[in-house]
Amino acid sequence: MNSRRNFIRIAGLATTIGLSGFETVFAGSNDKKMKPSGKGLKLRFLPHDLLLKHTFTIANSSRKTTPDMLTCLEFDGIFGYGEASMPPYLGESVDSATKFLSALDLSQFKDPFQMDDILAYVDSVMPGNCAAKASVDIALHDLVGKIMGQPWYKIWGFDPDDTPNTSFTIGIDTPEVVRQKVAEAAPYNILKVKLGMATDKEMVETIRSVTDKPLCVDVNQGWTDKNKALEMIHWLKEKGVVFVEQPMPKTAIDDMAWLTENSPLPTIGDESVQRLPDVIKAKGVYNGINIKLMKCTGMREAHQMLTLAKSLGMKVMIGCMTETSCAISAAAQLSPKCDWADLDGNLLISNDPYSGVQVVNGKMTLIDKPGIGISIIEAVF
Amino acid sequence: MNSRRNFIRIAGLATTIGLSGFETVFAGSNDKKMKPSGKGLKLRFLPHDLLLKHTFTIANSSRKTTPDMLTCLEFDGIFGYGEASMPPYLGESVDSATKFLSALDLSQFKDPFQMDDILAYVDSVMPGNCAAKASVDIALHDLVGKIMGQPWYKIWGFDPDDTPNTSFTIGIDTPEVVRQKVAEAAPYNILKVKLGMATDKEMVETIRSVTDKPLCVDVNQGWTDKNKALEMIHWLKEKGVVFVEQPMPKTAIDDMAWLTENSPLPTIGDESVQRLPDVIKAKGVYNGINIKLMKCTGMREAHQMLTLAKSLGMKVMIGCMTETSCAISAAAQLSPKCDWADLDGNLLISNDPYSGVQVVNGKMTLIDKPGIGISIIEAVF
Repeated sequence: MNSRRNFIRIAGLATTIGLSGFETVFAGSNDKKMKPSGKGLKLRFLPHDLLLKHTFTIANSSRKTTPDMLTCLEFDGIFGYGEASMPPYLGESVDSATKFLSALDLSQFKDPFQMDDILAYVDSVMPGNCAAKASVDIALHDLVGKIMGQPWYKIWGFDPDDTPNTSFTIGIDTPEVVRQKVAEAAPYNILKVKLGMATDKEMVETIRSVTDKPLCVDVNQGWTDKNKALEMIHWLKEKGVVFVEQPMPKTAIDDMAWLTENSPLPTIGDESVQRLPDVIKAKGVYNGINIKLMKCTGMREAHQMLTLAKSLGMKVMIGCMTETSCAISAAAQLSPKCDWADLDGNLLISNDPYSGVQVVNGKMTLIDKPGIGISIIEAVF
Repeated sequence: MNSRRNFIRIAGLATTIGLSGFETVFAGSNDKKMKPSGKGLKLRFLPHDLLLKHTFTIANSSRKTTPDMLTCLEFDGIFGYGEASMPPYLGESVDSATKFLSALDLSQFKDPFQMDDILAYVDSVMPGNCAAKASVDIALHDLVGKIMGQPWYKIWGFDPDDTPNTSFTIGIDTPEVVRQKVAEAAPYNILKVKLGMATDKEMVETIRSVTDKPLCVDVNQGWTDKNKALEMIHWLKEKGVVFVEQPMPKTAIDDMAWLTENSPLPTIGDESVQRLPDVIKAKGVYNGINIKLMKCTGMREAHQMLTLAKSLGMKVMIGCMTETSCAISAAAQLSPKCDWADLDGNLLISNDPYSGVQVVNGKMTLIDKPGIGISIIEAVF
């Protein structure tokens, strides 16, 4: 397996890069007495390209892999795991994440519980780099949850029985491939369809020819005419679609507010809603928001966005990129309070080094296991 | 000590009342095999009138005691403590709290971590009763924090070094008593003055004759003319006041928005802001909000209000009623993320059965102790 060999080689290289600057923290046991407060958080990271089972096509691009960075945060012999998934259209890369993570000095933090300070520091080091920031946030949550001996859905007081159905995404493809994907999606109770091309109606009709399961629709900013968009939404409603995600360009705010006001289906902002300050801006423009850890720098801000959106009476969807079970299990911790989940990213890849949250009868099923609740299938660090 | 004897007598009575309906839960060990899921949360409660060191005068009333109800929530041999403080003007009483708490069936909840479900149930049983609801919420937080082995400020990821100075309240009184109170307030770096009567300027001048410490002002809706209010705020600014709380009646929304727009000092809504939905309504009307556990049903909703207010760019003050160290220590868990604290309620009473958060050099000082971090000084349950 050539990909496996490459994986190990790249991993070794990155570990070397990643540890530069941190080795002095654990220079030797003799130092302990001289530096009683020297024990801080220790970060490791390594790239791990995700191999997609199917070529993935959305409105503007298609690809076979997703660049990804795995992280590990150590404190007092306890390890927390995180991840940055970086689909190219978001502007991050293994290079940018390596640069960002190498610039962090987490050894200055002697108490992992000070998540507010730690993550404010991480956010302050450079602008952007949201996925790279999320990779630290997720690892920190995993670590702190393990110290408390509880999974985050319990720490947050959520009922694991409240998790929603999760949708399975069907990309834009030939009718034959689409039918095959729908068959693969048998365990799911709701399907997500990527639209925004000339073939939208054909795509929906193809799916409808093989299943009558509820659909949700993600247009990825693909529609530019609000009247045509409204007409399309009326048609989609007849076809059993339950909501429409990011139908228009994120810059088309007035048109989008008009569409939401007139739409017979709820509208959800995705590309329009990255971080916490975007939630209040989305009020009145969309009926709900799609929270993704890779957009919003991780679980802490995601939890705040969820709290804010719910208090504003908005719907919340928890989404993902193509990710390993690490980030998917992290996002799933929030899912009991979300209206919809779209956490199928780990099921689209063939080289997941972790296992975690499972889909049982179409529903996210949380595990009563500390932190983000993952197990290591293939040792990475 | 007659008051102590009365306390015990009332306590015994209330415990009997409080346990009716719950005794069947622990009917006997023989039942255990027949009811494997029968172990639920067990609530006890008893009234404990708080004795005030000084007669307390605000704009509309004065009193020497505050009715209070202490609660204890047990699960699996672990005890969590809570409290409802019920100053008469808020409309709750020992009778209403007894009725409310007796109506709860918490034995149906087998997992204290399901705080969302438990507290949604508590909130749904009757409208109002916010302090009584807070007494359950606080006990549940204490219990769950103890199960996790961590104080809530750590669970929430706050930095205990970030706690603000806490203000010490000086009630409306004669110049002689005011001077005496200011002397008592020596350990504090900021004083809170209750205004809203004809003697406002005299009151501030009296305080200024003995100290130049920063002041904050609580008018308790006492000013009705917006122009006079603005004039007064300008005068107060010259006197070293840092913010003005609830200057006008809570119904005077337009006048208040005008005052906030023109005020040289930040304005804070207190009576105007009870629960989570009030936060968004306060945006544009006040610069900030005063969160009190007894108004908002407890720590869970208070944490959500804090998150919401901060994401809306508003200032947050954490306040209290006259309370024991129980509710004060619970509120203090939130204080590192607040701009101002006004948590002196336990210092105003002479029969505090608990000890918890301390004021050191004028600052709230959190204790690294699980739950809300209190110790029992006088066994109550």
